[in-house]
Amino acid sequence: MFTLLLAGCIFALSAQTDAAHSHSHGGRKIEFPNIPGFQTLKCDFHMHTVFSDGNVWPTIRVEEALKDGLDAIAMTEHLEYQPHKEDIPHPDRNRAFDIASKFAQSYDLIVVRGSEITRGMPPGHNNAIFLTDANKLLVEDPIEAFREAKRQGAFIFWNHPMWTAQAKDGVARLTDMHKQLIAEGLLDGIEVINETTYSQEAVTIAQENGLTIMGTSDVHGLVDWDFDLENGGHRPVTLVFATEKTEAGIKEALENRRTVGWFNNILVGESDWMMPLLQASLVVEKAEYSKNTQVAVVTIHNTSDAVFQLENLSPYSFHRHADFVTIGAHETVELEVKTLELKDTFELKFKVFNAYIGAELHPELVLPVVISK
Amino acid sequence: MFTLLLAGCIFALSAQTDAAHSHSHGGRKIEFPNIPGFQTLKCDFHMHTVFSDGNVWPTIRVEEALKDGLDAIAMTEHLEYQPHKEDIPHPDRNRAFDIASKFAQSYDLIVVRGSEITRGMPPGHNNAIFLTDANKLLVEDPIEAFREAKRQGAFIFWNHPMWTAQAKDGVARLTDMHKQLIAEGLLDGIEVINETTYSQEAVTIAQENGLTIMGTSDVHGLVDWDFDLENGGHRPVTLVFATEKTEAGIKEALENRRTVGWFNNILVGESDWMMPLLQASLVVEKAEYSKNTQVAVVTIHNTSDAVFQLENLSPYSFHRHADFVTIGAHETVELEVKTLELKDTFELKFKVFNAYIGAELHPELVLPVVISK
Amino acid sequence: MFTLLLAGCIFALSAQTDAAHSHSHGGRKIEFPNIPGFQTLKCDFHMHTVFSDGNVWPTIRVEEALKDGLDAIAMTEHLEYQPHKEDIPHPDRNRAFDIASKFAQSYDLIVVRGSEITRGMPPGHNNAIFLTDANKLLVEDPIEAFREAKRQGAFIFWNHPMWTAQAKDGVARLTDMHKQLIAEGLLDGIEVINETTYSQEAVTIAQENGLTIMGTSDVHGLVDWDFDLENGGHRPVTLVFATEKTEAGIKEALENRRTVGWFNNILVGESDWMMPLLQASLVVEKAEYSKNTQVAVVTIHNTSDAVFQLENLSPYSFHRHADFVTIGAHETVELEVKTLELKDTFELKFKVFNAYIGAELHPELVLPVVISK
Amino acid sequence: MFTLLLAGCIFALSAQTDAAHSHSHGGRKIEFPNIPGFQTLKCDFHMHTVFSDGNVWPTIRVEEALKDGLDAIAMTEHLEYQPHKEDIPHPDRNRAFDIASKFAQSYDLIVVRGSEITRGMPPGHNNAIFLTDANKLLVEDPIEAFREAKRQGAFIFWNHPMWTAQAKDGVARLTDMHKQLIAEGLLDGIEVINETTYSQEAVTIAQENGLTIMGTSDVHGLVDWDFDLENGGHRPVTLVFATEKTEAGIKEALENRRTVGWFNNILVGESDWMMPLLQASLVVEKAEYSKNTQVAVVTIHNTSDAVFQLENLSPYSFHRHADFVTIGAHETVELEVKTLELKDTFELKFKVFNAYIGAELHPELVLPVVISK
Repeated sequence: MFTLLLAGCIFALSAQTDAAHSHSHGGRKIEFPNIPGFQTLKCDFHMHTVFSDGNVWPTIRVEEALKDGLDAIAMTEHLEYQPHKEDIPHPDRNRAFDIASKFAQSYDLIVVRGSEITRGMPPGHNNAIFLTDANKLLVEDPIEAFREAKRQGAFIFWNHPMWTAQAKDGVARLTDMHKQLIAEGLLDGIEVINETTYSQEAVTIAQENGLTIMGTSDVHGLVDWDFDLENGGHRPVTLVFATEKTEAGIKEALENRRTVGWFNNILVGESDWMMPLLQASLVVEKAEYSKNTQVAVVTIHNTSDAVFQLENLSPYSFHRHADFVTIGAHETVELEVKTLELKDTFELKFKVFNAYIGAELHPELVLPVVISK
Repeated sequence: MFTLLLAGCIFALSAQTDAAHSHSHGGRKIEFPNIPGFQTLKCDFHMHTVFSDGNVWPTIRVEEALKDGLDAIAMTEHLEYQPHKEDIPHPDRNRAFDIASKFAQSYDLIVVRGSEITRGMPPGHNNAIFLTDANKLLVEDPIEAFREAKRQGAFIFWNHPMWTAQAKDGVARLTDMHKQLIAEGLLDGIEVINETTYSQEAVTIAQENGLTIMGTSDVHGLVDWDFDLENGGHRPVTLVFATEKTEAGIKEALENRRTVGWFNNILVGESDWMMPLLQASLVVEKAEYSKNTQVAVVTIHNTSDAVFQLENLSPYSFHRHADFVTIGAHETVELEVKTLELKDTFELKFKVFNAYIGAELHPELVLPVVISK
Repeated sequence: MFTLLLAGCIFALSAQTDAAHSHSHGGRKIEFPNIPGFQTLKCDFHMHTVFSDGNVWPTIRVEEALKDGLDAIAMTEHLEYQPHKEDIPHPDRNRAFDIASKFAQSYDLIVVRGSEITRGMPPGHNNAIFLTDANKLLVEDPIEAFREAKRQGAFIFWNHPMWTAQAKDGVARLTDMHKQLIAEGLLDGIEVINETTYSQEAVTIAQENGLTIMGTSDVHGLVDWDFDLENGGHRPVTLVFATEKTEAGIKEALENRRTVGWFNNILVGESDWMMPLLQASLVVEKAEYSKNTQVAVVTIHNTSDAVFQLENLSPYSFHRHADFVTIGAHETVELEVKTLELKDTFELKFKVFNAYIGAELHPELVLPVVISK
Repeated sequence: MFTLLLAGCIFALSAQTDAAHSHSHGGRKIEFPNIPGFQTLKCDFHMHTVFSDGNVWPTIRVEEALKDGLDAIAMTEHLEYQPHKEDIPHPDRNRAFDIASKFAQSYDLIVVRGSEITRGMPPGHNNAIFLTDANKLLVEDPIEAFREAKRQGAFIFWNHPMWTAQAKDGVARLTDMHKQLIAEGLLDGIEVINETTYSQEAVTIAQENGLTIMGTSDVHGLVDWDFDLENGGHRPVTLVFATEKTEAGIKEALENRRTVGWFNNILVGESDWMMPLLQASLVVEKAEYSKNTQVAVVTIHNTSDAVFQLENLSPYSFHRHADFVTIGAHETVELEVKTLELKDTFELKFKVFNAYIGAELHPELVLPVVISK
């Protein structure tokens, strides 16, 4: 090419490769946009404190959640497993919740009362949240514990079905007891993300059985350490699409399966909620033809923490990117689209490899483009 | 899960999410591994200085190349376009090469004598490299310039066939004159990467016509500014697979099409050379079953600057990753593979989305895994 | 000047300004060199857990210490202040120590049994460490608590004499009771650094009364949060110069006042131990005259975490620095010293502004330089 | 201390150690505040291009200056030293200026016509700026060259008097010829900073002879490389305190010695201009007593690129800092001042170690504090 000697061009040239890099918004707060009709609440419904086998006082869980920008957490101590009982006799299984919720009163954080029904397989470990009294779940028969939770109005989900201590091959599989629980309406959700593990088999179980998809930290130590925050890591969360930011709003959303799990650049959820989340995350801000060409410069801003990994399914090729495009968290990218002829509007279409609407199923996202006048 | 109270586990837990992050090797030196039988030479065969329309003295091009860890560069001033001729009368079109090659003598950098035959379309701009005297290419008829270059033993490639100043829709297309040049053996290669642009149509032209795939910076200003080095960017290069690090070795490799273009996390080249490059870049360092499970922990090290974006095509799912795995530049990742039963050996298979062996064609890479005893 | 056209010079030139920048060794481990005859142990003798008014289980304190590279910690729960007693009845004041020391057994970390005697003024709060049974200190009369601690062989120090809750003007002052404690041999040390506060008045009290200088974190929450680790902060520590890394070695060193406090780029201690620490921290690695000049290039490496802030007291001026020189943590700096004539040896002399051997007293450090032959 | 259980305190605690860290404003633009009555212009009056022994086209010097946020540059090619003359015959010594000033027309950057009178010692190298025709300075007798420059209205300064090629001990000393030049009014200024070197002896010469203090880059290669921009370095500049941002305004300021040199965290200049610059750089934003104490929290914001290194000369000690305080570039620090009794107003006083108003003379800065009501 020739040098562009027009003085006005020199800084534009310097910025040409910006699109290739990911610039985070900084900080540890988890950020995803709302979707039409719903608030996108960042929630973690599985964690432990010194009141079962965790290593912190409940107030630390509140402080972590505030630092992480969460909207809601649930306190879910093991009912039956009490390794600190010598020091913390803890006859009241509601104590962690009581302390955390009192401490959270002056913050905009919802703390949900929960408990982990902790058994061998089946049924393994299961969280009941939105309880009124955790103590009443301390019964011999696990099914009875589920029934008591339901009497209190709980939402119940199966924890880490891929846990190798209870499934040596790491594969989530429904047992007969789980099938019975589902049939009786005693099991509402399933973790597909737990701590640092992911289970695509659990995604299939959720979809085949109408269970809500959950992602949780199951943190026992410190979020800062367990999820490598110093290198930009984050805790797992469940994104909950709620009509209002209240405990009732969250419960209604969970019962209606309006969730997406988020961890390790994986977004996983049902298509009905994934598609509006992706649409809200990738915003076409501007589009105009480069002067004297049929190449449209489309400016796309990523409003989310996800790093988008996109395969181009459009009928057009790009002038600066190949057919696989990465858009970093909170980054703005200019795609130069070769539309061949000048158009007023056109569509970009991508397969979204960092999102899952099934075990190995990636959504296809259409971004309508309108050329600015 | 339960807290792991075994003391030895606490640091292992802290490192669990490392796989999600990309840690660069630091510095601006471009690094790719050698492949069996060939050295992988980092080369840039297109650049300008004050001796045509560039803005630096030729020695700066040598210093940039040394900082970038290149093995070879070509000086390719415009023969016919001399905007500085008022100040630099420049009757000898070899001057930039003479100055640069003299300056480079005390370094391990090969400087190649070249020139850009600079015409309107057709044939547009074309670089002839490995010349003996650039002045002799200053003739009226462009075809004659190509012929003179060939008489000097040159390797000739078409520059930026996607340049919107010469193709308003940005689409590379062969003209009749290019077909004639190819038929006469006067055109050997084609840029698929030029400065910050990429052309998948040029990839197809290369493959259909037996042309060598080239990626070049075409830098006129400063590499530091034009390729956003402060944010981790890098200049485009052609990776050349040569039997020896000499000018003759490079020329032989180019004539036999042993190249891969590299820019903006795109690796593009023929399958014959892409596959060994990918194999050399992703090294299985260790594999062992996690205790008391059928989950194999496979440690993979990326020896290259590429960020690998891999879709899992294996019959196995993973315990910590979903089916799309990112491995950062020079990063080491642990994949936890659910092999269902204990195996002595197995294969991982990935579609490599950051690599192209055709316009929209991604290679499939098989990594054999042997469990450590 | 003229351009240096000698090719070999280009990279040397690029590095010329390195001396101006501080490059940390990375990571959170606190690092200081040993001094002749003594190991430099990094110690924190003041911290809390859920067993008094802290917010973590004792094992977290061990994990923090290991991450921070400490050699020893003391568990120092408030004897009399037990806000969690409803949940943790805690009749045994040794519990935090018991849990932490058991957890630390498989690591190279010394955990010391201590307790905080927690009273209004006088005598305020005081830590007794190296106890055999904390419970026996639970007595009405504070002086009796000190005497019991001493019967157990304790080392006792006054905590945060500058605490504004007990001294509204923030000024440390000895009370008559403190004078009595000192006279009876019941008080051995004094904190000059507590959490994020510093008291130069406490330094004077230490020196006038033969008390050991202490720096402690007094952490109740998380070290990561309270000391801003994400931005390169660190917890306060007491550097202890011990003949051996054992509990007995540490106690002997404390009793003989061989300490330096370290926080917020303040090193504070007695001259006897400060001077060898500074000598060990700033190492002259090389010295040679720049060719054809009388300017000696002296290479100095900082082996410590301290950022050295040095005023030049030498009879020589510098060629690249003014008379105030900063040497970053673990940085190597080249000082170009104008010795006027060629010398075989000479001395550099600096006032060290980041170190204190008295309330407002900075040490003067002499670095002997021998020209390499 | 006790845990602060009041919920509102938890984030305040997290920020306590911020004062210890330096947070740059990011980017390479050099930033210093205006002072009362004058604009603070960032200027570099010494640089080279291919038109003498530099390695870039003049337009690069303009682009570097724009990236560095400069207000004015001077083009100062060597008149007599023309190593590129074989390629750039360059009969007109104004060419670099002509090209740069034309290119700069669309930017807010002043380009000044200058030349370097390049001789052996005496008088060494000297820059004449604000010329009308550089060619007329090409005369045999160096004194005549100075006289011609003055006839054109030039401001003339002695370059790098500490250059070891012309002073083997690196010590700046006036020769008889320099004394004659000063006596005749032919020498107006002296570089105390040149490229990466500093000369405190030159500061003394400036002050004893009424010369203007200058700091310049003398760049021949790339600013990015020579001043280590990738690690936060910057080019040397002369801060000029001008009544207006015009060539005439700058010249008037230089003639009246209203400058401060800036490089490598050294600010050097006459007290008359240094003191208002320091006052404008350190702004007391807020002051209030910490509740129930006599400790005043004084918030100070650094509006400049300098890292302030301050020795406390106030009658008060601090609650979180010792007597040596560092305030990073563009950082805000809270000083907790122990005023002993509650005051409405008081003064802080510091010796400023990063500033020089004489060879080894640091200014003392008084910051008046008014307690907010």
